[in-house]
Amino acid sequence: MHTLLKKAVLRHISTGKGEVGLEALDDSAVIDDIVFTIDGHTVQPLEYPGGDIGRLAVSGTINDISAMGASPIALASSLIIEEGLDLDLLDRVMVSMGKAANEAGIPIMTGDTKVVERGGVKGMTVTTAGIGRAGNALLHNRNVCKEHGREVHWLTDTNLHDGDILLISGTIGDHGIAILSFREGYGFETDLESDNAPLNKLMEGAMDVGGVVSAKDPTRGGVANCLNELAEKSHIGIEIDETTLPFKDAVLGASELLGIDPLNVGNEGKMILAVVPQKAGEVLEAVRRHPNGKDAASIGKASSRVKGVVMATKVGGRRIVEPPIGDPVPRIC
Amino acid sequence: MHTLLKKAVLRHISTGKGEVGLEALDDSAVIDDIVFTIDGHTVQPLEYPGGDIGRLAVSGTINDISAMGASPIALASSLIIEEGLDLDLLDRVMVSMGKAANEAGIPIMTGDTKVVERGGVKGMTVTTAGIGRAGNALLHNRNVCKEHGREVHWLTDTNLHDGDILLISGTIGDHGIAILSFREGYGFETDLESDNAPLNKLMEGAMDVGGVVSAKDPTRGGVANCLNELAEKSHIGIEIDETTLPFKDAVLGASELLGIDPLNVGNEGKMILAVVPQKAGEVLEAVRRHPNGKDAASIGKASSRVKGVVMATKVGGRRIVEPPIGDPVPRIC
Repeated sequence: MHTLLKKAVLRHISTGKGEVGLEALDDSAVIDDIVFTIDGHTVQPLEYPGGDIGRLAVSGTINDISAMGASPIALASSLIIEEGLDLDLLDRVMVSMGKAANEAGIPIMTGDTKVVERGGVKGMTVTTAGIGRAGNALLHNRNVCKEHGREVHWLTDTNLHDGDILLISGTIGDHGIAILSFREGYGFETDLESDNAPLNKLMEGAMDVGGVVSAKDPTRGGVANCLNELAEKSHIGIEIDETTLPFKDAVLGASELLGIDPLNVGNEGKMILAVVPQKAGEVLEAVRRHPNGKDAASIGKASSRVKGVVMATKVGGRRIVEPPIGDPVPRIC
Repeated sequence: MHTLLKKAVLRHISTGKGEVGLEALDDSAVIDDIVFTIDGHTVQPLEYPGGDIGRLAVSGTINDISAMGASPIALASSLIIEEGLDLDLLDRVMVSMGKAANEAGIPIMTGDTKVVERGGVKGMTVTTAGIGRAGNALLHNRNVCKEHGREVHWLTDTNLHDGDILLISGTIGDHGIAILSFREGYGFETDLESDNAPLNKLMEGAMDVGGVVSAKDPTRGGVANCLNELAEKSHIGIEIDETTLPFKDAVLGASELLGIDPLNVGNEGKMILAVVPQKAGEVLEAVRRHPNGKDAASIGKASSRVKGVVMATKVGGRRIVEPPIGDPVPRIC
């Protein structure tokens, strides 16, 4: 249904004339030097270990702007609430949205609230939009890229060149596996928590070093989908090394139990960065200095020697990493 | 529940530091000279005489930006779709969104689509966000206001002064009464249709004349709510004259049948403008030249002689126009 929808939606409503429009299907659109994004959130349950729908929404929107290299300047939030929703729960979600926005230092400027009769939505949905602009960090990053022979404007998915180093800002699969474990009742004995967090400051730290050519947050479809999109849109292969991929033991354990590849599930507080080789070590250090980046790792590189995404496995072989078909864990974002 | 929500939401998530923030509860927020708005739409049924949820969403967002005096530059749309929704209906809604956006000349730059299991939403919800900037029309309007001794930046709800003339861009109550008649089965024998339409060009035409100090679209709570908000936020009374209020006969007939005051129901293609007296006639003519403004009328004025909103009735009396308590017609926007 998703592909069908995407086609239906794009065919009729795209009238894009900005710098990065709907057709690009990038993290955000850019028009008139304003980065603009929107995301609807329907996670079930509304609260889960490590987060809730409010924190998820704020983080997701900030990260979509940050993944373009922009600095977010404001958020807008639209709530659709089912009549009879527990007001204490609603209150906790609101507190959580405010806390996540404060953590990021970004105001929620405008909002809308609709209450619908029972059955109109399941509990509540939170749709957040955000705007951002090129900040000092991106301007500096552009200069450093230029020093290394690269013309980088926004950190779009199309910017990878042969040899660019791929970093991930932390452990893989935490959000999707935490939610699924919780739903299935496997989560209670572990400390498995969602990673949902705003990453604008982490990204600004990376760009303050400079040399970042592209960034993308591996949400729906996980790392596997994210890397495939980068490879496809940049017309270049990607090689990653399984031994370098950071995983929490609890995620590996639960994934095995649930029969799910953690590369295929959504992360909500992670960023994949592509960096020119000369600056990759320094950028990795900068990312690690951020609390949400302490487990950051260098996981591979863009490579014209392969097609698609190829992983050197722990046991010495190689396998193709395909994007997942459909969503292995529905309603996690 | 609404007041409760508004309090709950505002208390925690407002971290506004823009020019017009969440606390102002104006049509849109303004930060960094960018006008920014969001609106969630849950209308039932999804298609109705004269429109559908897609046209409603696009029009509503464009009008919230236009009501600030800004020129919209881009829209974003987030769809939450119930699994199994009729794809032909979805297709028609998408076509309709595209058509409304083209009518307004504004691109839908970015979007998000989530499919949820049956019962997750009722059919679909459409949340739209929009950004706008001060265009040439607003800059000209600011100058003309200044010539008449008025410092007007954005067309906020706080700008009314004693003697400002109030115009409405067309007939009152069409959207709410059309939807309710249709739902109740009374609509079939009339040509009663929703007025949902984007009004950015109409507003630009009015500002090209100049002297517009405030604008607001009378959506939820209708004209009664809109005028009361203007009066309250501007700390001035409002006098209107019932004989000048434009109504379609079909709206009056259906309102009587349904026992609903059409001043209390939402309009989705109308604007109330406050204009300095010297320019009111000319602005009215400009609004009437626009296809969506042909029934525009001058309906009253801001007045320090009264408190709240007072209407001179047809029969020669006077009555206070109170804002409606709750929504007389739920789920129409």
